[in-house]
Amino acid sequence: MSRLLRINTKDKTFAFSDMGPYSGMGGRALTSRIVSREVPPTCHPLGAKNKLVIATGMITGRPAGSSGRLSVGAKSPLTGGIKESNVGGSFAQRLARLDLMGIVLENQPAYGSAPCYIVLGKDGVTFEDASDMQYLGTYDTVKRLMDKYGEKSSVLCIGPAGETLRQNASIQVADPEGRPARAAGRGGMGAVLGSKAIKAIVIVETGEAPPIVDKEAFKAASKRWVEIIKGHPVTAEGLPGFGTAVLVNVINEAGALPTKNFREGRFEFAKDISGERMVEIIKERGGKVKEGCHAGCIIQCSQAYHGPDGKYLTSGFEYETIWGFGANLLVKDYDQMAMLDRLCDDLGLDTIETANTMAMLMEAGVLNWGDGAAAIEALKQVYDPKNPMGRIIGGGAEYTAKAYGVTRVPTVKGQSLPAYDPRAVKGVGVTYCTTPQGADHTAGYSVCQNILGVGGKVDPLDKAGQVELSKALQIATAAIDATGFCLFVAFPVLDTADGVQCMCDMITAASGSPFHPEDFLKLGRTILQDEFAFNQAAGFTSAHDQLPEFFEEPLAPHNVTWDFTAAEMQAVKAM
Amino acid sequence: MSRLLRINTKDKTFAFSDMGPYSGMGGRALTSRIVSREVPPTCHPLGAKNKLVIATGMITGRPAGSSGRLSVGAKSPLTGGIKESNVGGSFAQRLARLDLMGIVLENQPAYGSAPCYIVLGKDGVTFEDASDMQYLGTYDTVKRLMDKYGEKSSVLCIGPAGETLRQNASIQVADPEGRPARAAGRGGMGAVLGSKAIKAIVIVETGEAPPIVDKEAFKAASKRWVEIIKGHPVTAEGLPGFGTAVLVNVINEAGALPTKNFREGRFEFAKDISGERMVEIIKERGGKVKEGCHAGCIIQCSQAYHGPDGKYLTSGFEYETIWGFGANLLVKDYDQMAMLDRLCDDLGLDTIETANTMAMLMEAGVLNWGDGAAAIEALKQVYDPKNPMGRIIGGGAEYTAKAYGVTRVPTVKGQSLPAYDPRAVKGVGVTYCTTPQGADHTAGYSVCQNILGVGGKVDPLDKAGQVELSKALQIATAAIDATGFCLFVAFPVLDTADGVQCMCDMITAASGSPFHPEDFLKLGRTILQDEFAFNQAAGFTSAHDQLPEFFEEPLAPHNVTWDFTAAEMQAVKAM
Repeated sequence: MSRLLRINTKDKTFAFSDMGPYSGMGGRALTSRIVSREVPPTCHPLGAKNKLVIATGMITGRPAGSSGRLSVGAKSPLTGGIKESNVGGSFAQRLARLDLMGIVLENQPAYGSAPCYIVLGKDGVTFEDASDMQYLGTYDTVKRLMDKYGEKSSVLCIGPAGETLRQNASIQVADPEGRPARAAGRGGMGAVLGSKAIKAIVIVETGEAPPIVDKEAFKAASKRWVEIIKGHPVTAEGLPGFGTAVLVNVINEAGALPTKNFREGRFEFAKDISGERMVEIIKERGGKVKEGCHAGCIIQCSQAYHGPDGKYLTSGFEYETIWGFGANLLVKDYDQMAMLDRLCDDLGLDTIETANTMAMLMEAGVLNWGDGAAAIEALKQVYDPKNPMGRIIGGGAEYTAKAYGVTRVPTVKGQSLPAYDPRAVKGVGVTYCTTPQGADHTAGYSVCQNILGVGGKVDPLDKAGQVELSKALQIATAAIDATGFCLFVAFPVLDTADGVQCMCDMITAASGSPFHPEDFLKLGRTILQDEFAFNQAAGFTSAHDQLPEFFEEPLAPHNVTWDFTAAEMQAVKAM
Repeated sequence: MSRLLRINTKDKTFAFSDMGPYSGMGGRALTSRIVSREVPPTCHPLGAKNKLVIATGMITGRPAGSSGRLSVGAKSPLTGGIKESNVGGSFAQRLARLDLMGIVLENQPAYGSAPCYIVLGKDGVTFEDASDMQYLGTYDTVKRLMDKYGEKSSVLCIGPAGETLRQNASIQVADPEGRPARAAGRGGMGAVLGSKAIKAIVIVETGEAPPIVDKEAFKAASKRWVEIIKGHPVTAEGLPGFGTAVLVNVINEAGALPTKNFREGRFEFAKDISGERMVEIIKERGGKVKEGCHAGCIIQCSQAYHGPDGKYLTSGFEYETIWGFGANLLVKDYDQMAMLDRLCDDLGLDTIETANTMAMLMEAGVLNWGDGAAAIEALKQVYDPKNPMGRIIGGGAEYTAKAYGVTRVPTVKGQSLPAYDPRAVKGVGVTYCTTPQGADHTAGYSVCQNILGVGGKVDPLDKAGQVELSKALQIATAAIDATGFCLFVAFPVLDTADGVQCMCDMITAASGSPFHPEDFLKLGRTILQDEFAFNQAAGFTSAHDQLPEFFEEPLAPHNVTWDFTAAEMQAVKAM
């Protein structure tokens, strides 16, 4: 009997309850259902009526490979729409071990109240003064809390960006090594936590593994699951071998690596920022090429990237981050990119949004193209709550563009485009435009079929089939985000006949309630229906389902333009 | 045969044309029709596809009392919707005397291009380098241009705010004294001009009075017109006697003077900021109590306010400005309010938006409540294009609130509320919510019937009748804004049986085409239809037709709340 924990951040009270109308829901299904039912769509995202929902997946906590993902949901201060931000780290599994499906943070203390942190155990929470950690970076925050509560404690927290209520603030989650390098990055979830004056949540009890109703069936399915994941080149070789940065060369080759704020599709120095090059550096300096972001990960796409001094600098150093601080800014120095990643994690900022923010400063002439050192200095200003430039940068790309009247702003619904040029990967362009989440590749990763040849092939440069492709992937992704499985399991699942069935078998065996592939698809559709309905009530229309006008420009080397109208993509929303 | 002048600001070319499909249109009818037909609703407001339309009124240039108003229209960078900003000064009449109904500024040079100014005569324009006036205040800009082109030249220009593309930038128009104290303030029209790298437009020829087809009829009607205007207490006594600041005591008495960012309906020191007090100061210092903003004004609500040194400081010093920098910030020093007004005019910023911006800085604790001196220093930062705080402030109230995560933000569609608390003047609240212009009292000034007893009486605290009242006023206002008459003629017109007929008689006599009161109302409806249609295509829905949630709080002294739903107000849009 899993539970919900509701915390009133104004009164500093809490209550456990059964799941009630949310019974059976986990992850994104739970966050989006609670937000769509309980948060007024037109409320201020940083006001008392917004709620931050932190949910573990349906299967999380059981020994199912790569199932330790956490969903964080709220009305987004970045997009103004509904948001689910998905993150690894150890928190999700630990939540499940407290017999909790989710935490709902409600209400808020007065603006400017001193921060506190929440200590969470099986029987309740205490609220502790966090004044001495105000505006502290997330690395030091996690260290202090783990020093105090022990190395088995599990922490999520915000940095200065969340505390200063920046629209681009992330929530950082510590990985098994105690490093807050895992980010619920997109959509400003850290500002929502900051608006409730909560600096961190620490789980201090290890709890008990959640029950598995049919242990035999679970064991059989999870064994097959490992075979599936370990049998696919992407999850068995590409990701553990090079991290997600394996994509740099692939996407560059495809002519879809956005360069100099989406002006070109190939970067002259792509090799210098490739995954292959990262592995060389890591090996030279004694870092680690592969690591999991949570216990039981059987993909291991993370790493420990060490600086020139041979000391740990960052991890969870993703392709999208490397693209954003690299090709998109014309930077080719790996250590500069790594430092920008580290700063984002420490400040509590989304790297994709921050990288695009730096591009806006370069468009405006505030920074010079290619000047990674200046970008590092600019970003450090976010540490100082009194620094107006730090306030601007923390607001994200669209906010920063507005400060300087820059019009070449690659956003949809206020959220920055990630590392795939939509003109040359049209399927992911449809996802950017139509997902309720704002521009987001993970919401429907058509790169699989457009570029990687995973799950079939759809010509990336042709409009044909992209809407149907994006829709199918958005449904499947929403469902995966509810289960607690890492989205990367989709690579093998898409190429394996019994992939979805195997996931369903594990869920069925764990819960004792039959869960079939058709239930999986229904789950995905239901989540999207909740999200589209919320956004519609919040004031979104098809006018918001389009790329900025500069994508009419042809993109080299394929000289392709963005040629979808919003109307042509509306079929995505018919569930 | 009036003409349009189209200027391509990228190529530095121009072309005159006849009115074509816009024949017979003037003022807001012309700006809103051109914008709604020629500007893509989802385009970037500071991009090449937006157009800035500057239009004179249907009757402007003829000897019809108080008919010298100018309309400036575009897609607004502040609201994202259509905008018409209405302004006095000498430009509108001079435009009419060049046989021009409007100027359409199209396209744009590259971001960061050096500014130029446009010299306009009857036969064409020249483009002159304005590099030496870059970031110059509007007072010095006008002085330089009038020194160069003579005291009969007529200037509109932008200040540093427009040049730095701030969303709250105004276009300032020189009055007959050569003072740029008249503002097309609302909606960021100055940023649109700045995005086209145009610092100023100077009309250097006096031209010829536009024709009047039936001179006898015109003379008779315009004589009656003077009687009507001079026969009403508001236009004959209140406005010329005290300026619009006559309202301070009236609105305070009504419990509708927003105090400390809309926390109270009365200000303890209302007398200190009243129109009566302003007149005392003006008389003490040898200023002028009444002035017209354009030749032929028969109301004369402006003034010359001198500083403690006895020298001219500001004019066009409106009630809304005094409220905003006074009661709303808890400031009671007239000279501080006057300096803030002067700075806004000189920087090229809307005073209502700037006053609310200062309130946001006080909410955030960046400034202290009541500290007018600090507000002055904060505002001066907008002069420096490299100052990030100046960039934030120039973005307006909502932008500044976002920099600090302030949620008590009194805006509708991104534009700040003016000087009438909507809870205690519910009719104007309906206007704030439903006008396509964003929160704007002038779009449907229900204060007349709610408070002043002009044009009838409708209880300001009761919901009954407010939607119908606002709708009727929005229609009439749109029509007046097309004629070129000052909106203040509405006071006597609403109370005079033949008021509208008399306006129509002048228009009929001037043009030779019959224009009846039913045409007047049809004109207003047509304008609103254009504007609502543009906004709908730009992505606005009824979700955008509501006040921020904090207006649920009761307002002293009447303890009234805002109790309209967006749905209840949609009838306004049915034309």
